[in-house]
Amino acid sequence: MPRWEPHAKERLETAALDLYATRGYDRTTIGDVAAHVGVTSRTYFRYFPDKREVLFGGENKLRDRIARSLQDAPADMPPLTATLHAMSTCEDLYHLRKHEHLRRRDAVISTSSELQEREARKLASIAAVVAGGLVERGSDPDSAQLVADLALATFKQAYRLWMDDPATPYAVLLYRATAQARDVLTAQTGSAATQ
Amino acid sequence: MPRWEPHAKERLETAALDLYATRGYDRTTIGDVAAHVGVTSRTYFRYFPDKREVLFGGENKLRDRIARSLQDAPADMPPLTATLHAMSTCEDLYHLRKHEHLRRRDAVISTSSELQEREARKLASIAAVVAGGLVERGSDPDSAQLVADLALATFKQAYRLWMDDPATPYAVLLYRATAQARDVLTAQTGSAATQ
Repeated sequence: MPRWEPHAKERLETAALDLYATRGYDRTTIGDVAAHVGVTSRTYFRYFPDKREVLFGGENKLRDRIARSLQDAPADMPPLTATLHAMSTCEDLYHLRKHEHLRRRDAVISTSSELQEREARKLASIAAVVAGGLVERGSDPDSAQLVADLALATFKQAYRLWMDDPATPYAVLLYRATAQARDVLTAQTGSAATQ
Repeated sequence: MPRWEPHAKERLETAALDLYATRGYDRTTIGDVAAHVGVTSRTYFRYFPDKREVLFGGENKLRDRIARSLQDAPADMPPLTATLHAMSTCEDLYHLRKHEHLRRRDAVISTSSELQEREARKLASIAAVVAGGLVERGSDPDSAQLVADLALATFKQAYRLWMDDPATPYAVLLYRATAQARDVLTAQTGSAATQ
């Protein structure tokens, strides 16, 4: 008989990460994860369609937040600036208290090509949403995609900086990562770039 | 009884693209693809592990080519320059005669989230190989990944330019895409970028 499970979703996410990290992703079943928090597999499937998605529960939140902030950005902000601005509003998702959880999540993902593939899709879907938002703001589709990809490269770099420096606000690291990206492109490319 | 099938791999690739484009990816089976070129499913599996991989036969070639060219690039070339140089040696993979095939491949990929996920992994694996090659050339891992991601954003933009302009050599378009990426990052970011 189904019953209400307080915070079942969050508890399943934590249990999955614990088990995937200690036992291994391939050697853990959905039944193991459910049993670990005292629920049935059926309860698990109420929240997640498969074994993988339990690690990607935050994807929609991140993507929707970026999409909405991009819509709300002043119309005269240039595309990349508006995108970085939108990404910096996700700062609380990269708060110090999330650091250990995300560090462990990264470690688990690095053990499985299936999870790496899913992570690559997550990032591609964020870039797609950004590109779509920029087209709505008036960019042509090709440059919207270029700006989205450049912003994503910067976002990923900010994430790596944050992994080494979790106490610094994400917006500051995003700013620093943007400066690094600009330096790479201005210092290392010129007329000789593709000779 | 297995027998030698001349150009079976290439014929299977062409047949799969034809069937996926006309009948739909979901509505085509491996048996259909094999039958279309007069071979058995067993022959199909000699070349491709599943239904999806038949569209990704060129991935290893592209990745290995970029990796090798990056190794061969002069040691004093800066990381991004060396990466773009390596990417420009793949020019023949983006020759005018490949254009229609790749345009149809893109159209098929856009119809299936499974294929989009696989394409995202392909691009991520190219970035990973580039980042690894840059670390071997002396970059620290974080900036190697940033350079790899920026180069990939540029490579994808060059590909879009080539889709609209297939007669122009890929190296030229890569150069143009790099200039566009540099313009985006220099014109649109400054002290106000993440305010």
